[in-house]
Amino acid sequence: MRNINKKKVNAAILVIGNEILSGRTQDLNVLFLSNWLNKKCGITVEEVRIIPDTQSKIVINILKLKKRFNYVFTTGGIGPTHDDITAKSISKAFKVKYEYHKEAYSILEKYYGKSRFNDGRKKMAKMPRGSSLIYNPVSAAPGFMIKNVICLPGVPSILRSMIDNAKKYLIKGLVVLNKSISLHTIESNISKELSRIQNKYLKKVDIGSYPFFRLGRIGVSVVLRSSNKKKLESCFLKIKKMVRKKNIKTFT
Amino acid sequence: MRNINKKKVNAAILVIGNEILSGRTQDLNVLFLSNWLNKKCGITVEEVRIIPDTQSKIVINILKLKKRFNYVFTTGGIGPTHDDITAKSISKAFKVKYEYHKEAYSILEKYYGKSRFNDGRKKMAKMPRGSSLIYNPVSAAPGFMIKNVICLPGVPSILRSMIDNAKKYLIKGLVVLNKSISLHTIESNISKELSRIQNKYLKKVDIGSYPFFRLGRIGVSVVLRSSNKKKLESCFLKIKKMVRKKNIKTFT
Repeated sequence: MRNINKKKVNAAILVIGNEILSGRTQDLNVLFLSNWLNKKCGITVEEVRIIPDTQSKIVINILKLKKRFNYVFTTGGIGPTHDDITAKSISKAFKVKYEYHKEAYSILEKYYGKSRFNDGRKKMAKMPRGSSLIYNPVSAAPGFMIKNVICLPGVPSILRSMIDNAKKYLIKGLVVLNKSISLHTIESNISKELSRIQNKYLKKVDIGSYPFFRLGRIGVSVVLRSSNKKKLESCFLKIKKMVRKKNIKTFT
Repeated sequence: MRNINKKKVNAAILVIGNEILSGRTQDLNVLFLSNWLNKKCGITVEEVRIIPDTQSKIVINILKLKKRFNYVFTTGGIGPTHDDITAKSISKAFKVKYEYHKEAYSILEKYYGKSRFNDGRKKMAKMPRGSSLIYNPVSAAPGFMIKNVICLPGVPSILRSMIDNAKKYLIKGLVVLNKSISLHTIESNISKELSRIQNKYLKKVDIGSYPFFRLGRIGVSVVLRSSNKKKLESCFLKIKKMVRKKNIKTFT
C-alpha cells in the first residue's frame, strides 16, 4: 500500500466480470463509486481496470494495484456460483487462508435458516483470513476488506446499500470540488483561451472541456476541478470573463 | 503485438478521460465497442483500463497493452483542446514524430474553410507519423491507427459513426455466440447444478450467472458463451433440463 498523504488519498477500482467485458452488461458501479469516494471520503479514483473472472488475472491485478494505490475497490464475483471467485483469488494474492469467516457464517445461517443454508450459500461466508466485514442490509452476504483491498458485489443496488458500511475503514482525504459551465460553442473556438488559463493554474486547477449534443444543439461543458476553493473560484471567474469577451452564450 | 491466432483475436480498450474517472460522465463506449468487436469482427475484449489525461500514463499503458493484445482501442483525447493529448502521447509511445497528417490536414481545412482553420482545429490533423486514417462522417476530424493501436474519439455518437471505417484494418476472428435464459430463482438455488454443468463444458462453453431485479421481482440470468455452436446448443439443453427438473419458472 502506498503511504497515505492525507491531502491526496487515491484509489483504483477493479471491476471483475465477464459480463461487462463481453458487452452484455453496462457497468454502473464506476460512476457511482468515483462520486461517492470523492464526495464522502475525499478519495480520488485514478485508475479503473475491467478484467475477466479468471483467478490468475485477479491475483496479478490485485498485486499491482494494491502497491500503487492507497485503496483498491473490487466489484463483482462474491456471490454463490462457480464464477464467483473473487474471495478465493484475493486470498491467493495475499497468501492467506481462504476460510469461513465466523461472523459472516452466522449472519448467513440466520438469514437463510439452518435447513436452507446449502453449500452455495455457505460459500459466501468464505473469505481471506483476517478480513473485516462490510455489512449488507439488502441480501445479507457481506463484502469484506483485507489490508487496503475492499471487495464489493457487482449488483449496483446491493453495492449502493452497503457502501456506507465501508466508510469507517477509510482514511479521508481532501474533497475535490468542481464548477462547470456549458457553452453554446464548439471546442476549437475556445481551445486557445482554455489553454492559456490552464497554464496559469497549472497543478492547482484541472480544466477539462467536453463537447456534447443536447436536444439537437451542440455545446461544450468546461469543467474545473480543484481541492483549493479560492483557486477554483478565481479560475472560474477567468473562464466567465473569457466567455463574455468572446460573446458566447451559456446553456441554462 | 501478440501473434494473431485467427480463432481467437483479442483486444484491450484504453479509455482516456478524467471525466470518466471523476464520476462526471458515464462511459458508454466500452459496452458498444465490446459488442461491435465481437459481433462484427470476432474480436474479444479481454481487458479495459480507464486512465487520466496524463501523458506518462497513456504512454506506459499503451506500451504494456500493445504487447499483450492483438489490438488496443483507445477512446477520448483526440479533440482540439489542451486536455486532448492522446495523439501526442501515442507518438511518444511508438517513438515516432507527432506531425501533420497531410490527408487529415486537407480534410479539416476543407471542412472548416481556410479562414476558420485555426490552431485548435489544426491540432486535430496532428498524429503519429505513419498513421492510417479512420474517417469521421459526422464532424470530419479523423481517428487513426498506428501498428495495432486504434485511436477513436470519446463522444459516443461520433465514435459510433466512425467505427465501420476501422473494420477494414482489422483481422477477423471467430465470433463468440451466446444463449441465455432468465429464471425465477436465486443464484444459491442453482449454484451446485451450474458448477456441475460448467465442469462438463470446461474451456468449451463459458457459463455466467447474473442476479437481477426486474419490475420488483428477483431472478437470475444464466448466460452461455462459446464460439462452438454445437457445444453451445448441447450445454443449453442441459441447462434447460436442469431448470425443468428443479421446477423453476422462466421469465418471458
